[in-house]
Amino acid sequence: MSILVVGSVAYDTVETPFGKAERVLGGSASFFSVAASFFAPVNLVGVVGRDFGETQLAAFTGRNIDTEGLERMDGLTFHWQGKYSYDLNARDTISTDLNVFEFFKPKIPAAYRSSEIVFLGNIDPLLQRDVLDQVESPRLVACDTMNFWISGKLEELKKTLSRVDILLINDAEARELSGEWNIVKAARAIRAMGPKTLVLKKGEHGVLMFSEAGSFAAPAYPLEAVFDPTGAGDTFAGGFLGYLTAAGGSQGGDAALRRAVIMGSTLASFCVEAFSLDRLLTLTRPEIDERFRLFKRLTHFEEL
Amino acid sequence: MSILVVGSVAYDTVETPFGKAERVLGGSASFFSVAASFFAPVNLVGVVGRDFGETQLAAFTGRNIDTEGLERMDGLTFHWQGKYSYDLNARDTISTDLNVFEFFKPKIPAAYRSSEIVFLGNIDPLLQRDVLDQVESPRLVACDTMNFWISGKLEELKKTLSRVDILLINDAEARELSGEWNIVKAARAIRAMGPKTLVLKKGEHGVLMFSEAGSFAAPAYPLEAVFDPTGAGDTFAGGFLGYLTAAGGSQGGDAALRRAVIMGSTLASFCVEAFSLDRLLTLTRPEIDERFRLFKRLTHFEEL
Repeated sequence: MSILVVGSVAYDTVETPFGKAERVLGGSASFFSVAASFFAPVNLVGVVGRDFGETQLAAFTGRNIDTEGLERMDGLTFHWQGKYSYDLNARDTISTDLNVFEFFKPKIPAAYRSSEIVFLGNIDPLLQRDVLDQVESPRLVACDTMNFWISGKLEELKKTLSRVDILLINDAEARELSGEWNIVKAARAIRAMGPKTLVLKKGEHGVLMFSEAGSFAAPAYPLEAVFDPTGAGDTFAGGFLGYLTAAGGSQGGDAALRRAVIMGSTLASFCVEAFSLDRLLTLTRPEIDERFRLFKRLTHFEEL
Repeated sequence: MSILVVGSVAYDTVETPFGKAERVLGGSASFFSVAASFFAPVNLVGVVGRDFGETQLAAFTGRNIDTEGLERMDGLTFHWQGKYSYDLNARDTISTDLNVFEFFKPKIPAAYRSSEIVFLGNIDPLLQRDVLDQVESPRLVACDTMNFWISGKLEELKKTLSRVDILLINDAEARELSGEWNIVKAARAIRAMGPKTLVLKKGEHGVLMFSEAGSFAAPAYPLEAVFDPTGAGDTFAGGFLGYLTAAGGSQGGDAALRRAVIMGSTLASFCVEAFSLDRLLTLTRPEIDERFRLFKRLTHFEEL
């Protein structure tokens, strides 16, 4: 089973307290694809400009990622520039040059249309539905969004959510989307909009998942050196959905969903250790499995 | 084995988005004692004024709490007044009337001096050492403190910490005490000051423990109705140290420490369901054990 992912492929210029990286590979679909590709084949749909080079492309083509759906338009690639404060929890966007991404209209190649697992990255909810319309019979649809769409296109977003199985957002977005401050009430309200499973990403505070089987809480891995948090959420989503796909999609049940959350957290914990996708690109499956085991050690306790 | 606890016994006037409670029982030693008394006998050392009535005292005397060490001074009982914002994460202190607590000089009754387990509530680090000097040979010393002492009496606090086995503070306090933003580095710096075990309380984001055996992360229980967070940290400490005492003090090793964190979180999750100690006072051991099991269900995942 392969995963269809639609989202941004971008250049990022990032400044953290530890250094600066200029025009490095970024974008939600980039982080997602590389993380997911450790577990399942990925079909990537996105758009880049004429300035997107072979070096960047090599991040995808060297692995289990199909780039037939990565459209090349005349113009420049999406470029985001941001700066993190000393605590790495807050970031300021210095500039967002959408460039060719402004005209992105996802075209799903014929070979991708039979995809059973779909990840809708954070794009206009109308485009997210457009994608779903082009896929023959998705078995499992996961989706990301952001406050920009929650406040600006709520009704469109709700229409999209009615067709989504798993929503992955952060806790602030969940509060805004539901209008509920309490996170348990927020989860119930959002799950009533469509997604049977809600995965709340809380950054350094880990993840809370609400599903038909109940709730599941996972910490973030306590790291001594968090270098650059950019892409951690998308990397989480890639590890999560990649693992779930390898485990048989939605068929794995609650046990697979829980392990998928830990796998997402594992991949994200590597992502933040370096700029861009640098750490993900050198990562090996044994390293992943070892950190997964450390997560077990981190959270395990015996019954009374 | 019984636990000696030294801390505040107070009246709280608390306003939350859900209501207001006037002059109800509060104080770190009150929450701690009631929580710990589910697991082990508690010897309470504190001070109250002539306005402290039998009704309040009944919270202690009806259970496994010895109040010989609860001194009664001529004057009024410590009164704290605070108001929580809608998100319950931030609170404003409206007034702090220390009253008799300003003159608190802990006197440990002879019968308490052989206590093997000691909890030093959040008081002047000089007084915390005074208490330790009056205890014959404590096997396990746990301690709380706050930013007021970290910024105002750092050197005294460090002297106290050199005699402490387990420090329980929140993440902001850990950052201030260590001068390190990164929580793993902060933990290492603090453990070098004396406490072999550091328990970081993160409110709704749970707890991180750093000990000789490594690190352990536990979530807070996701509650639909958080009514009043006052006392949650002290209740956590009471459940934590009470369980640890019942498990044989420090002898229980890493497995007991981990279960103690979950037991603290369990007790704290009940504490916040009502004003003051109201929920703790109706709580039963079967209810505690059932929620402990829910914590297991909340966090459990299978190995790969």
